[in-house]
Amino acid sequence: MTHVYRSSKETERLNFVLIHGSWADASYWQETSAELQRMGHTVYVPEYPGHGGDNNPNVTQAQITQAVADYITSRNLKDIILVGHSFGGTIVQTTSQLIPDRVKRNVFMNAFVLQDGQTLADQLPPPTVEAFKQLTQASGNNTIMLPYGLFRETFANLADGPLAQYLYSRMLPEPAGPLFEKLNLSRFYSLPIPRSYLYLTTDGVLPQGEGYGWHPHMSLRLGVFRLIKAPGDHMSTVKTNPGLIARKLVEAARD
Amino acid sequence: MTHVYRSSKETERLNFVLIHGSWADASYWQETSAELQRMGHTVYVPEYPGHGGDNNPNVTQAQITQAVADYITSRNLKDIILVGHSFGGTIVQTTSQLIPDRVKRNVFMNAFVLQDGQTLADQLPPPTVEAFKQLTQASGNNTIMLPYGLFRETFANLADGPLAQYLYSRMLPEPAGPLFEKLNLSRFYSLPIPRSYLYLTTDGVLPQGEGYGWHPHMSLRLGVFRLIKAPGDHMSTVKTNPGLIARKLVEAARD
Amino acid sequence: MTHVYRSSKETERLNFVLIHGSWADASYWQETSAELQRMGHTVYVPEYPGHGGDNNPNVTQAQITQAVADYITSRNLKDIILVGHSFGGTIVQTTSQLIPDRVKRNVFMNAFVLQDGQTLADQLPPPTVEAFKQLTQASGNNTIMLPYGLFRETFANLADGPLAQYLYSRMLPEPAGPLFEKLNLSRFYSLPIPRSYLYLTTDGVLPQGEGYGWHPHMSLRLGVFRLIKAPGDHMSTVKTNPGLIARKLVEAARD
Repeated sequence: MTHVYRSSKETERLNFVLIHGSWADASYWQETSAELQRMGHTVYVPEYPGHGGDNNPNVTQAQITQAVADYITSRNLKDIILVGHSFGGTIVQTTSQLIPDRVKRNVFMNAFVLQDGQTLADQLPPPTVEAFKQLTQASGNNTIMLPYGLFRETFANLADGPLAQYLYSRMLPEPAGPLFEKLNLSRFYSLPIPRSYLYLTTDGVLPQGEGYGWHPHMSLRLGVFRLIKAPGDHMSTVKTNPGLIARKLVEAARD
Repeated sequence: MTHVYRSSKETERLNFVLIHGSWADASYWQETSAELQRMGHTVYVPEYPGHGGDNNPNVTQAQITQAVADYITSRNLKDIILVGHSFGGTIVQTTSQLIPDRVKRNVFMNAFVLQDGQTLADQLPPPTVEAFKQLTQASGNNTIMLPYGLFRETFANLADGPLAQYLYSRMLPEPAGPLFEKLNLSRFYSLPIPRSYLYLTTDGVLPQGEGYGWHPHMSLRLGVFRLIKAPGDHMSTVKTNPGLIARKLVEAARD
Repeated sequence: MTHVYRSSKETERLNFVLIHGSWADASYWQETSAELQRMGHTVYVPEYPGHGGDNNPNVTQAQITQAVADYITSRNLKDIILVGHSFGGTIVQTTSQLIPDRVKRNVFMNAFVLQDGQTLADQLPPPTVEAFKQLTQASGNNTIMLPYGLFRETFANLADGPLAQYLYSRMLPEPAGPLFEKLNLSRFYSLPIPRSYLYLTTDGVLPQGEGYGWHPHMSLRLGVFRLIKAPGDHMSTVKTNPGLIARKLVEAARD
């Protein structure tokens, strides 16, 4: 009854590059990164323009992509597992187009997968787009700040109140420009890079089903891809259960 | 790597009012109520006309709503978490319209969320509506009794046989009228009351997807809402795992 | 607060007949069968033409159905729980038509449920059908062999690399004919045999949702059925967690 296959014991050493999303900075991945390193993997978490220390509200998706590509090439990183969360999915797509030979696999974790020529806003229900446009106008500097109620109910639905408030207190306004940029992704869809989709199943940011959502709506655009699931929401599970997120990223990334 | 937020340790004390659904009475919530009280919360479980001790088959949705509202106002309950299961979702909607100032949050647990002017029957596949109409006619007194096979396979699919039989043995015919009443819900959709949807993912009562179902089909009508999920079916998980249901209700209800 | 129902303690003794799917043989069920027997159940795992020891590439669905029916009648098996996985779902449908009096319940585990007159290929996205036709033509003997990448990402997505490779190394080309046969299933849909659908939720073989997939797309064709869910993929979870699969099959099968 026993199997004649060698157990890997997860000894495969992977090189992760983790790309955070909107209303976030590199600290999004802090705990997950620590867990992955404890498991023996190498982890890089680039900050990108318009986020973290840089508060340029007029950053473009192209500038972000170039910065991430430069981060990877300047360190001569190879065979990388390029992971994107949320808006970071579009950066995975565009960066893979720039430096495909350095990328071993794309992993999308509740991340946008845009079709060629689409904008991120195209993936949102019209009332959300309208709300984002109003918030942009109200900002006076082309940024969007999420109201606390919306954040608490849909980005951090699994958090307790104090964690939701803590996460919100560290949140900065997001540059609005990249949400409305049409992306040229014709090359992405012809790349031979293997793809995985890690779906955290209690994410409330996008409608689940009925023409929207992370999975299966956007994941199916990847064609042949590896599906991994775990319970989790958009913003808080990486803080409350980073060990789970790390194990699932490895399931998504391994050979 | 540690967080600088105060853990709530779930010390927030919540006031639950739990509304059962069709083919049920207040005993539906018995074990869940005990678990919530053990966790330090206050719990009220009103019985309503046409159910429990009252077997009036001609009860109306308006009578039920008034009875629940009276139950709450006569006890001067405030800041309540108004939870509805199944048909109880419509009572949450209509009661919130009557006494919005007493309601802190609406929680729908595999519960109907009707659009303004709809009937509950509008949410069911046509063959189910047809079967319910025939059962109503066969009853001779405007009630519907579920056949055991249908109950066992779709309402108590996770139960073992003896539990399914026990639950069925306690079930009474359901007044048919409220299933076919058009509800005026125009006020509900303009109320500022926060909303949560607790989705028990193995519920077989409604088709899951393809235009029907608890989530996302009905939950999305809530607009911005907090999504919580747990494994469970429609009628038996509150009996076999009330601790899980209680914990998830708290996740749905807390600030 | 305690229930007045007799716990079954799963002492009900069930007679399972387990039907494997394409690119598989009876060894698919080996570990699950051992777990079910350990729980006290009786298990039969028929091999069928074109699979296992028999490599006839021109086998028909009718020949497979007759072989399974003969296996059951020659042993005089009664009150059987007829379980099908994947392509095995169609065999459950057609065998139940032949010998309905011997079948106590049908259980579909991520299995095809065809409508009357459909082919299995009708359930697949057009690009997959096209790929299968090309693989059939390339085979020279009317069979289809899955490329490793497709198998690894979509049939064994939860496996580690060594297990995926081991499973692939034992895989034989699948006779293509039965995938393109229209099945007469008019009798199946009028049989009074109870039905269950066990859905392993991380199966990547079919698109999940948007008009395709095991559940709810195909499961809903069963009408009234018992839904059971478990985490798992198409081919590897029966090897890595056969105890879970066995427990869930019992939940699907019991009275």
